[in-house]
Amino acid sequence: MTTHRFVATEWHNVLGTLPPAIRVASGDTVITETLDAWGIDKDDIKRRPGPNPMNGPIFVAGAEPGDALKVEIVRMTPNRATGWTRSSLAGNVVDPEAVRELPSREPVTWAIDRQAGTAQLREPVAGLEHLVLPLEPMIGCFGVAPAMGQAFSTATSAENGGNMDYRGFRPGATVWFPVAVEGALFFLGDCHAIQGDGEIVGTGIETSYEVEVRLTVEKDRRLVWPRGENATEIFSVGNARPLDQALQHATTDMFNWLKSDYGLSSTAASHLMGQVVRYEVGNVYDPAYTMVCKIEKKWLPAR
Amino acid sequence: MTTHRFVATEWHNVLGTLPPAIRVASGDTVITETLDAWGIDKDDIKRRPGPNPMNGPIFVAGAEPGDALKVEIVRMTPNRATGWTRSSLAGNVVDPEAVRELPSREPVTWAIDRQAGTAQLREPVAGLEHLVLPLEPMIGCFGVAPAMGQAFSTATSAENGGNMDYRGFRPGATVWFPVAVEGALFFLGDCHAIQGDGEIVGTGIETSYEVEVRLTVEKDRRLVWPRGENATEIFSVGNARPLDQALQHATTDMFNWLKSDYGLSSTAASHLMGQVVRYEVGNVYDPAYTMVCKIEKKWLPAR
Amino acid sequence: MTTHRFVATEWHNVLGTLPPAIRVASGDTVITETLDAWGIDKDDIKRRPGPNPMNGPIFVAGAEPGDALKVEIVRMTPNRATGWTRSSLAGNVVDPEAVRELPSREPVTWAIDRQAGTAQLREPVAGLEHLVLPLEPMIGCFGVAPAMGQAFSTATSAENGGNMDYRGFRPGATVWFPVAVEGALFFLGDCHAIQGDGEIVGTGIETSYEVEVRLTVEKDRRLVWPRGENATEIFSVGNARPLDQALQHATTDMFNWLKSDYGLSSTAASHLMGQVVRYEVGNVYDPAYTMVCKIEKKWLPAR
Amino acid sequence: MTTHRFVATEWHNVLGTLPPAIRVASGDTVITETLDAWGIDKDDIKRRPGPNPMNGPIFVAGAEPGDALKVEIVRMTPNRATGWTRSSLAGNVVDPEAVRELPSREPVTWAIDRQAGTAQLREPVAGLEHLVLPLEPMIGCFGVAPAMGQAFSTATSAENGGNMDYRGFRPGATVWFPVAVEGALFFLGDCHAIQGDGEIVGTGIETSYEVEVRLTVEKDRRLVWPRGENATEIFSVGNARPLDQALQHATTDMFNWLKSDYGLSSTAASHLMGQVVRYEVGNVYDPAYTMVCKIEKKWLPAR
Repeated sequence: MTTHRFVATEWHNVLGTLPPAIRVASGDTVITETLDAWGIDKDDIKRRPGPNPMNGPIFVAGAEPGDALKVEIVRMTPNRATGWTRSSLAGNVVDPEAVRELPSREPVTWAIDRQAGTAQLREPVAGLEHLVLPLEPMIGCFGVAPAMGQAFSTATSAENGGNMDYRGFRPGATVWFPVAVEGALFFLGDCHAIQGDGEIVGTGIETSYEVEVRLTVEKDRRLVWPRGENATEIFSVGNARPLDQALQHATTDMFNWLKSDYGLSSTAASHLMGQVVRYEVGNVYDPAYTMVCKIEKKWLPAR
Repeated sequence: MTTHRFVATEWHNVLGTLPPAIRVASGDTVITETLDAWGIDKDDIKRRPGPNPMNGPIFVAGAEPGDALKVEIVRMTPNRATGWTRSSLAGNVVDPEAVRELPSREPVTWAIDRQAGTAQLREPVAGLEHLVLPLEPMIGCFGVAPAMGQAFSTATSAENGGNMDYRGFRPGATVWFPVAVEGALFFLGDCHAIQGDGEIVGTGIETSYEVEVRLTVEKDRRLVWPRGENATEIFSVGNARPLDQALQHATTDMFNWLKSDYGLSSTAASHLMGQVVRYEVGNVYDPAYTMVCKIEKKWLPAR
Repeated sequence: MTTHRFVATEWHNVLGTLPPAIRVASGDTVITETLDAWGIDKDDIKRRPGPNPMNGPIFVAGAEPGDALKVEIVRMTPNRATGWTRSSLAGNVVDPEAVRELPSREPVTWAIDRQAGTAQLREPVAGLEHLVLPLEPMIGCFGVAPAMGQAFSTATSAENGGNMDYRGFRPGATVWFPVAVEGALFFLGDCHAIQGDGEIVGTGIETSYEVEVRLTVEKDRRLVWPRGENATEIFSVGNARPLDQALQHATTDMFNWLKSDYGLSSTAASHLMGQVVRYEVGNVYDPAYTMVCKIEKKWLPAR
Repeated sequence: MTTHRFVATEWHNVLGTLPPAIRVASGDTVITETLDAWGIDKDDIKRRPGPNPMNGPIFVAGAEPGDALKVEIVRMTPNRATGWTRSSLAGNVVDPEAVRELPSREPVTWAIDRQAGTAQLREPVAGLEHLVLPLEPMIGCFGVAPAMGQAFSTATSAENGGNMDYRGFRPGATVWFPVAVEGALFFLGDCHAIQGDGEIVGTGIETSYEVEVRLTVEKDRRLVWPRGENATEIFSVGNARPLDQALQHATTDMFNWLKSDYGLSSTAASHLMGQVVRYEVGNVYDPAYTMVCKIEKKWLPAR
């Protein structure tokens, strides 16, 4: 198990079958510094146009189509004293006629106090003078190359992951992506210091991060959608529009998971999900929305 | 402040402008026993066809159009040893082609242990032999008469509330409904012993309950959608299809609430919501879906 | 077969189980003058607040739940020299961020030339100086009382019809509504001198009309959604949001119709619909959207 | 103006920035034989796996990002005696619970009579014995390489075109695509002998065709979505899910088109669209649905 310090020198605005930037073994750990959503690094230098320039791809030896790439988010350390957001709710998250009254969507700077682990608006805003947010770092965009030579903008997401902007992709979480190409070709970037559900202003607090992930190949998992777990829950991720369809994808995936891995019948899986399932909204801003279907581990039968 | 024991003798399958079953003063408490979604009472007698027969309407003196009816859910006590669910996920919550593989939607009985405060499947189901769920009672359907002589089936919901099937409508929660007619005309019923997010099998554990609510008129609140609070959060409720539109309604309502009651500008409200908002899925089964937009009270500026 | 001249003296903003304004026999013809969407009559007098005040209900003797009410739209004669529209696309029919650039939604007057059968903007608008539209009259809102004591605003539509705002509801068309209450209780109003697909400015050219309809009870038809025909086509109507669901309702209804009335198997109905079906958008403005699924009669097997 | 006979020897399942198969000048005509959706050629030989293998890309000299590629569909000649469809409505076009009753989705063969210009089911189906459909050829999938190194499956569509499955892409129609890469990189394939609106069985009659198109670069058109015209209409194409969003894209594009090219104000464009616009459903089967917003040329002001 090697730990790699991966210093990116080029970045990508798509997740696709691109030449590997680094090759690692299954089980290795990678530490890398990511740009923010606009391509700005820890030194405030713009290294690449947006949206969401990705570090990678990381080729994980042994990964083949049909496998899963297990990504453990070990650590996220902020490495800049500022982040930015947008000053208005996005048009698509409010009633259509209410869009006429929204403020303009200007970039706004937040001060990040890495000692205290907090963020504050740099310019005071009336009513929010005392708003001090705890850092709750998360990866906005990560995933693997999609199948069939497709390449997807880092503005959106699909079965292969991508720009899901889900708060639950935070240190301590493990995520599995369906591998579609040899080496999996893992990409990551677009980290947020904190974000509300839905990313409804179109951003979290966008900043640069040092990220540590462990990458492991699990053979022949035959996943369709990304899956994950944290200390207390397992979860399935659906990416699509409308939100109804994202929810259908995530729900169907959890249903299949309970049947294939936990031995439940369709009826038993229905009973369990019906009374204990939880949903979380990832993003409702990007071209594909993200809905997460969760079950607490305490309800799961032994595997 | 009087406490009324309201024994319903007829029930309604719509929320509309119907003759009051009881008249109370603002601030009064009402204790009443509700039927389950099929109209079955605590003695297992079917008293009224479904869907979701309502106790009421309760006329609250002084309530006029433009006011809010504040409903404090004081207590919910189960009064029957059984409840029922459906044996399959609903067709609309899975991928369309996956519907072909769903089991049939049969009613299934759960045993409710009122001493222990738990529920269990009455007939054992493989893999769920040890599933013992805590009772987490909630009101599935409640609300006030809609405006303009409209009357809505208790299968669905709208601005006036109705069949929202949201887990958060539980003891300890307070809900405000927009009053559209004199006396508000409050209805309630369809209580669940527990339910997962989304009511994705089309039911929670449906049973009869004794419910205690306190009803208070707040003058001239000019609400559009139901709002609520619990010990730690405030929340806005949007009811519509698709889920995207329910989310737009709830988000717009929270945005307006922060501006009107907490003095935030549109920009400040956007900043706050963008980074701290939480969503919860009420139901994704009924004709109108329910999405809840929440903010923790600790983030709110002083009113 | 009697012809009734029905002079409305009160109007309704809901379709519901209300006292009949007139009783007719099955097969009778009714001639009546309708108000426009704001409640303004042929003499420019506002007789009732909007939305869409309805003439009716008309009790059709012999109609019982499970029957169909056949409505033949015999004639629509404009009886006013003006109509009105809105000056902007509705917010919900454009991309959300494009709403910021829309003009305001002001009422605009059109001159109706009943001799020529045309309509023109009364105040010239640059680029449209020569725009002379032919009158293509249609009924915006009509239908029967819904089931179970429900009452729906004339702003929206459902299984019982209502504010469908579909161009195809024009003279020469026949429409069947599912009867849910004794006497059917037929309502009509909200006629348009012309309208584009979707009613995307929120109006057609709204004006008053003299309408002649023939009302006939067809026993035990067991309809779910409105159906219709014109000289060359049969069609099923779905009313819901999103448009996808309206399309599902209309498509399912046509599928069932081909099976029950034309003797096709599910496979044969699929073959036929797959290659010859046509869709038309009724409205994409009202709370429920309207999608119409059509098949040309020349493709139908003999009944 | 040269006419090229382009004999494809490899095919692609994505629209992306791939090495050109042929280079042509602006204004040239290309004649090429396409495979069907499964990759089967005119001799019934499977040349490439599906979905929808594309001929191309065709590099059109002079095309640069910001330009439009004008594609005139000159001629489509069927070159095989068979085509195929699916035997059931797709799950997503009917009500979710109705999916349980759908037949299985088997491939079905149609006999194509090129002399008569008709198609018939090869095996008789009860009730459809006399069904003889006229050939109404159309291109199911065509478009140009998307921006930013993206590559999209030929199962779906986006701003760059792709698998739109719209009946209106037939001989006599002209289509403009927004050019995103040098040479435009035009792809085409997946022709249908006939198809109903929506492609609701998931196919038209899928077969191989000889297609003749004329490709012309129009400089600096700054299109966002595909646009088209035929003898009597202009039209804008929106590709997205849900259908509501596809409609928003198409409507916004037509609105912008009327303003930029026909000199209308926002208000004038609203007036015109509100009363004369027509919608057509392309597909409601693929990952992105297609909605077309049309205006008859007779209503357009002089450019």
